[in-house]
Amino acid sequence: MEVGRRGFLIGGIAGVAAAAGARPSGAQPAAKKARLRLSSQHWLIPGKSLEEKLERMQKWGIEGVEVGGDAVGNPKKYLDALKNTDLKVSAICFGSMGGALVSENPDRRKQGEEQLKRAARAAGELGARAVVFVPAFNRQTKLAHHEIRKVLVDRLPAVGEVAAKAGTHIVLEPLNRREAYFLRLVADAAAIARDCKSPGIGAMADFYHMAIEETSDLGAIISGGKFLHHVHLASRRRVLPGQDERSFVDGFLGLRMIGYQGFCSFECGCRGDKMVEFPKSVAFLKDQWAKAAARS
Amino acid sequence: MEVGRRGFLIGGIAGVAAAAGARPSGAQPAAKKARLRLSSQHWLIPGKSLEEKLERMQKWGIEGVEVGGDAVGNPKKYLDALKNTDLKVSAICFGSMGGALVSENPDRRKQGEEQLKRAARAAGELGARAVVFVPAFNRQTKLAHHEIRKVLVDRLPAVGEVAAKAGTHIVLEPLNRREAYFLRLVADAAAIARDCKSPGIGAMADFYHMAIEETSDLGAIISGGKFLHHVHLASRRRVLPGQDERSFVDGFLGLRMIGYQGFCSFECGCRGDKMVEFPKSVAFLKDQWAKAAARS
Repeated sequence: MEVGRRGFLIGGIAGVAAAAGARPSGAQPAAKKARLRLSSQHWLIPGKSLEEKLERMQKWGIEGVEVGGDAVGNPKKYLDALKNTDLKVSAICFGSMGGALVSENPDRRKQGEEQLKRAARAAGELGARAVVFVPAFNRQTKLAHHEIRKVLVDRLPAVGEVAAKAGTHIVLEPLNRREAYFLRLVADAAAIARDCKSPGIGAMADFYHMAIEETSDLGAIISGGKFLHHVHLASRRRVLPGQDERSFVDGFLGLRMIGYQGFCSFECGCRGDKMVEFPKSVAFLKDQWAKAAARS
Repeated sequence: MEVGRRGFLIGGIAGVAAAAGARPSGAQPAAKKARLRLSSQHWLIPGKSLEEKLERMQKWGIEGVEVGGDAVGNPKKYLDALKNTDLKVSAICFGSMGGALVSENPDRRKQGEEQLKRAARAAGELGARAVVFVPAFNRQTKLAHHEIRKVLVDRLPAVGEVAAKAGTHIVLEPLNRREAYFLRLVADAAAIARDCKSPGIGAMADFYHMAIEETSDLGAIISGGKFLHHVHLASRRRVLPGQDERSFVDGFLGLRMIGYQGFCSFECGCRGDKMVEFPKSVAFLKDQWAKAAARS
């Protein structure tokens, strides 16, 4: 019988229960209260210019903008456009860099590390809470599953140091098996983040992928816990929340329980006229949040 | 864009919230109320004979006995010994069969399937709720991670049919990375069980492994949800619960929330005199359960 092994984590949960209205078992600091802060990738929003899109988002009650990888080379473009708005940058949607960080080629791994550090610095300049990072899409690396995990835990702490210094987080995004078998569960992303032992490394959750892979939105979000710094919103069919039967109540209950402080950002298609459907989706999500609050 | 994919689960969660004292969002059947039903592997209990061990367990407030793989060949031995007690068989602790079911060798896979079916039939005769199954310990198969998962989802439904007919469940046991990298998270075991689409295939949770791998006991158990049919009890150092700092409150809160109906079974060592320490551990666990109830 194996005797012992130092444990990780656990700390956050009494606070979690407190936030959910249950009594904590010990003297825990109260978890921060979660609020539904909506964001959207700007390319989903109708408008002739970035400025017009941002103005429209603000009018619709969206508080954050998720930007693309182009922001890493040119944060000023976004900072200028945001100047006369109340919007914040929620995240840089950065992707996998072709799987560079977990490549079987050590030179590419080094390049990936540097590229991710640059993204972290840009996120810092933008005041973004998260850099969305997919370790590898299917077929982007020849490494075995356990080797990919080891590379992440070896390499990410150095990136996390840069991210923490910049006031942001590299967030591991679980997708579904068709896109990226390696990482499919929020609990798994959070466990990798924990093993990195860096406050600059975290996890995210995407309601579209969760509907395919998770057995419980609530369990997934609670397992994400303090490691969770970004959320993507999409329905089961990857259109706007409210355009199909996908419920967000269990997941939002989880966000309330963990005292989530990040954004929930649209990443989806749309059926019908965006000018009509986007405001409807915002209203739907606020209603789902209220339903979660009623169950807290 | 991928359109559609039938959703799994979710149904149980409103019931979950109800059990936790929160208001369900719709008309959901109330979840069954969970009760702490303790069990132990009989070889952990002091005694000259199986009968003496069982009598002692009952005296200590233990309601179930977990038996070894030998029960598959000889269930009568256990049925006879149990006759004059109120104890039930909680589970057959069956193991990995050397990784046979997920071997790179198709003949061994077929053998593993037949062996697991025999175990399911024996569990049925014993009235056991679960057959504890580890897909593969490290180095027991040459298959890649995604291949192991595919074999499980291909092979287990046929075993699950036999298990369901026998009134039992094959439960996938997540261990920790040192023992079995393939399966480390309860959410992952539950997701495999869901993909098998067989009521005879489920998952289990082990508090020792959870302390190493999970970011949240509560999240893990909620993700286990309706797929969870067995639990192993051990402290952080794999001795009796209460013999170190390992808390069971978050996990027990989860069991209460999902309306867990299975056993929680000792699988651990012991520091000191078992005749003194076992009853202390039973009392400790009952107290942890009461603390979880106070937070519900």
